[in-house]
Amino acid sequence: MTVTLADLNRMDLAAFEAAVGESFELAPWVAAASHAKRPFATVSDLHAVMMGAVRAAPRDTQLAFLRNHPDLAGKAARAGAITDDSKDEQASAGLDTLSEEEFVRFHRLNDAYKAKFGFPFIVCVRRHTRDSILVQFERRLGHDQATEFAAALQEVFFITRLRIAGKVTGEGMPNVNGRLSTHVLDTHAGRPAIGVAIELYEFTGEKAHYIQSAITNADGRTDQPLIGGRPLPIGRYEVRFAVGDHFRRRGIEAGDPPFLDIVPLRFSVAEPEGHYHVPLLCTPWSYSTYRGS
Amino acid sequence: MTVTLADLNRMDLAAFEAAVGESFELAPWVAAASHAKRPFATVSDLHAVMMGAVRAAPRDTQLAFLRNHPDLAGKAARAGAITDDSKDEQASAGLDTLSEEEFVRFHRLNDAYKAKFGFPFIVCVRRHTRDSILVQFERRLGHDQATEFAAALQEVFFITRLRIAGKVTGEGMPNVNGRLSTHVLDTHAGRPAIGVAIELYEFTGEKAHYIQSAITNADGRTDQPLIGGRPLPIGRYEVRFAVGDHFRRRGIEAGDPPFLDIVPLRFSVAEPEGHYHVPLLCTPWSYSTYRGS
Amino acid sequence: MTVTLADLNRMDLAAFEAAVGESFELAPWVAAASHAKRPFATVSDLHAVMMGAVRAAPRDTQLAFLRNHPDLAGKAARAGAITDDSKDEQASAGLDTLSEEEFVRFHRLNDAYKAKFGFPFIVCVRRHTRDSILVQFERRLGHDQATEFAAALQEVFFITRLRIAGKVTGEGMPNVNGRLSTHVLDTHAGRPAIGVAIELYEFTGEKAHYIQSAITNADGRTDQPLIGGRPLPIGRYEVRFAVGDHFRRRGIEAGDPPFLDIVPLRFSVAEPEGHYHVPLLCTPWSYSTYRGS
Amino acid sequence: MTVTLADLNRMDLAAFEAAVGESFELAPWVAAASHAKRPFATVSDLHAVMMGAVRAAPRDTQLAFLRNHPDLAGKAARAGAITDDSKDEQASAGLDTLSEEEFVRFHRLNDAYKAKFGFPFIVCVRRHTRDSILVQFERRLGHDQATEFAAALQEVFFITRLRIAGKVTGEGMPNVNGRLSTHVLDTHAGRPAIGVAIELYEFTGEKAHYIQSAITNADGRTDQPLIGGRPLPIGRYEVRFAVGDHFRRRGIEAGDPPFLDIVPLRFSVAEPEGHYHVPLLCTPWSYSTYRGS
Repeated sequence: MTVTLADLNRMDLAAFEAAVGESFELAPWVAAASHAKRPFATVSDLHAVMMGAVRAAPRDTQLAFLRNHPDLAGKAARAGAITDDSKDEQASAGLDTLSEEEFVRFHRLNDAYKAKFGFPFIVCVRRHTRDSILVQFERRLGHDQATEFAAALQEVFFITRLRIAGKVTGEGMPNVNGRLSTHVLDTHAGRPAIGVAIELYEFTGEKAHYIQSAITNADGRTDQPLIGGRPLPIGRYEVRFAVGDHFRRRGIEAGDPPFLDIVPLRFSVAEPEGHYHVPLLCTPWSYSTYRGS
Repeated sequence: MTVTLADLNRMDLAAFEAAVGESFELAPWVAAASHAKRPFATVSDLHAVMMGAVRAAPRDTQLAFLRNHPDLAGKAARAGAITDDSKDEQASAGLDTLSEEEFVRFHRLNDAYKAKFGFPFIVCVRRHTRDSILVQFERRLGHDQATEFAAALQEVFFITRLRIAGKVTGEGMPNVNGRLSTHVLDTHAGRPAIGVAIELYEFTGEKAHYIQSAITNADGRTDQPLIGGRPLPIGRYEVRFAVGDHFRRRGIEAGDPPFLDIVPLRFSVAEPEGHYHVPLLCTPWSYSTYRGS
Repeated sequence: MTVTLADLNRMDLAAFEAAVGESFELAPWVAAASHAKRPFATVSDLHAVMMGAVRAAPRDTQLAFLRNHPDLAGKAARAGAITDDSKDEQASAGLDTLSEEEFVRFHRLNDAYKAKFGFPFIVCVRRHTRDSILVQFERRLGHDQATEFAAALQEVFFITRLRIAGKVTGEGMPNVNGRLSTHVLDTHAGRPAIGVAIELYEFTGEKAHYIQSAITNADGRTDQPLIGGRPLPIGRYEVRFAVGDHFRRRGIEAGDPPFLDIVPLRFSVAEPEGHYHVPLLCTPWSYSTYRGS
Repeated sequence: MTVTLADLNRMDLAAFEAAVGESFELAPWVAAASHAKRPFATVSDLHAVMMGAVRAAPRDTQLAFLRNHPDLAGKAARAGAITDDSKDEQASAGLDTLSEEEFVRFHRLNDAYKAKFGFPFIVCVRRHTRDSILVQFERRLGHDQATEFAAALQEVFFITRLRIAGKVTGEGMPNVNGRLSTHVLDTHAGRPAIGVAIELYEFTGEKAHYIQSAITNADGRTDQPLIGGRPLPIGRYEVRFAVGDHFRRRGIEAGDPPFLDIVPLRFSVAEPEGHYHVPLLCTPWSYSTYRGS
């Protein structure tokens, strides 16, 4: 259910809270404090005002707010006792399907984190792969209290920016989506490589998990970006191109087995809202790639 | 135990047979027929004469000779009832450590092959990865009798060329060794990348098996070729370069995590006696490779 | 003065001839024969019908038509006694500013050509550089009569396609324009190279003639294609990129003088209606280019 | 006429002076002061001792020594009134064949330089192209006296190092030679490009001066380095590769005219004693180069 910014600007307090109040976890006071600032010129302005309300709150209120967030992959999540938004977000990084061993590991990190900081570990999971969440967890456990308090608020702002962008439509949408795209150029023929099968994988540790497939079109691109319309989760990826099949279809001899068959490009995403263009220029005997634009 | 070509040229029949007779599996008659052709100008000549003796033999003798070869990964191998040469060769492709399932698969292929052709499947295993042996097995099962008889003799000649090259030293050694080398050039700095950790893997199906590691030296090369002094087994390989660590040591910022960390180059070898030079040209944001020389 | 296809479809014969009759050099009968075929669904259809009229004409009429074309860079052109279209076209390849020596060379080739074929040399000059016109001239002098008659008509069709596309607007415009574009990617920084000065040159023999300059924008591209909205003249080109200045602005040390300063990319255009994308990927120590898409 | 270090170590003063005294322009006292330091373990040691003698001399003596150097491209050179070494060196950069205009320009720079510093402009011309000498001239005119006095001595040491390396043979030769090499890899075929015609040019201003030609051998390299056995003059170069002919010989279609015909690589040399390896990786539709090793 989305609402337009125009409608939102006309709502009374109750309707406004019903529409966007849940964006800030169990903190309807954020929406309440923001209602008076209507009308908002842009959706980004709306989110900025709501962030301002959090920043302006007393420290105790902020702390209580952070404490109201559920544990990542915690028992509340398992028991279904968290908001729907939280549930969907945790599912996005596969935190709802952890093995028993992984569950125990998250649980231990959570306990250590809460013991040190007094509030649960908060991270905008849609902006991270499962691997990256663990990297963040361990890195942030090393922070001092002030640094981590700021880091937790920043994550809340990432989370709520995504929630607002999902609930409200209108002018000036916040920039929450990244894009992963590719392009295959056959520099042996001097034209785009058409019909090349592509697979995208995400790494968890040393394991590559299949995400999706695509086929290059007449321009050597995929009809849809490999990832688009959402943040690119921070993490490590591999895109595999079936160039051996491509050159075989063209009737090119390149050894038996051919020198190049499946070409993997392995790279990391560090900017979830960025554009990662990772093209492949190839012949049966050479290839190159780069972060393009 | 090696012997010089000069010494071999002076040997009487008994000594000659003792020296090189076993090269042709259970066929001392090949050495016997070749003895009279001494002296040999080169080691290649010696092998050519021995191959000539096989080619000149009646078809029945040739068939009996092929039949004397052990099954690949067969029961004789498991029981130790084959020549030492055969034992070492089968170990080179890991055929001595098959799982029960793999053993059964080889066994079945062997049975089907012998039923069709009347002699065991012969392949110069030192020139193949385990994967490639299975590809060969299935491909050759589709041959007609004449084609496969010739193919089997050709494999015998590959096997014996390697055995002779291992036993006899002197002028005109046959070309039995391939070479896999690499070179890492840091095109961000315009100089060789020093101290880059490299790992070589061989593929069996979708699984990458670790073979060995190396570190680039001051010239961006490895002190020893990744594979050298032996045939390059036909098959699929991956060389992985720790370029993320390299640029981190140079203090270059390239995202967190860095855009490139472990760069895998995946390629196939089709010419066991060839030189495969597979360099990596890289910056923190791009890389390229090619079959070089 | 352009006319819309809709208006053209409604015109009587006189208006129709006035509008498009001159497209076929001194041959109003082509328009006259085409008028009855109205309405034309597309501008390409209009041109196809006019070409059909030429093809359907008796050989004598066709020959007379070819003979009515002016000499390339001939005396008629110098004296101004040719159609405006012809005048503009000849100027596009610099044929109106030949040196005395070049004028004599063209004159001689023209004489030889007319002596052999009985009609003047016709070429669609907007599709060629001056260099390419001379190559065509000499190549076509070697043709037999039938081949060259067909070649001359084909050139007439190229010429008239451009003229029609310049006079008539509407649905289904013929594809007469090519595009030359570039893109500079700084693979040292992993982003587009902004503010790089680019110069485009065209070759006549060994001499590079300056055509125009551009500067890369925030996306590493030029705001306008280097050539666009017209055919790309067949010929040899060089695009020069001031990458030394770019890296100097970024504060990168790359030798004194820097290893790369002006990087020239030299290539030829063979398809005047094609898209030539010629990007530069560069670091201070390396670069690459390719025909992209 | 060269002498061995061993012989030199045994010479009396007169012979020693005759052998190496002229290396330091009109300054036999340098050799005289060095004679007592025999034996020299290496040729580099000999030169180090001679440099030490200059450094140890009183400032007045040093100044007189600098003043004894001939003007670059000066009247003395034209009149033949300079040492043979100086004459050969000036010829190496073409300073003996200046146009009248260039002669005047050098003359003026010389006058300005001498007016400011009190000694003639000294530069090791073998380490520079004519272009680079002019760059040095103007840059050094901006120096203060102390900086330029040191710079002049440094140039003397470069000059004498080359002279000593040319006169004396033996252990520990000073490193005076650079190397410019190339390699052409046909990544369309996956092997070295054989028989590719290569031309080397040096730039003076915007003009490219032809230096020499070579043809790639079976390994895609030139039998001799493009420049070797001498310093690489600092300056700008272009190497041109006739790749269009190469692909035409291979029967590859790549447009008419072919997309790539003559490929120019333009780069600068900044380290006269360095190794510049400038390879070309190419297909009919793409190429790349880099400073290799």
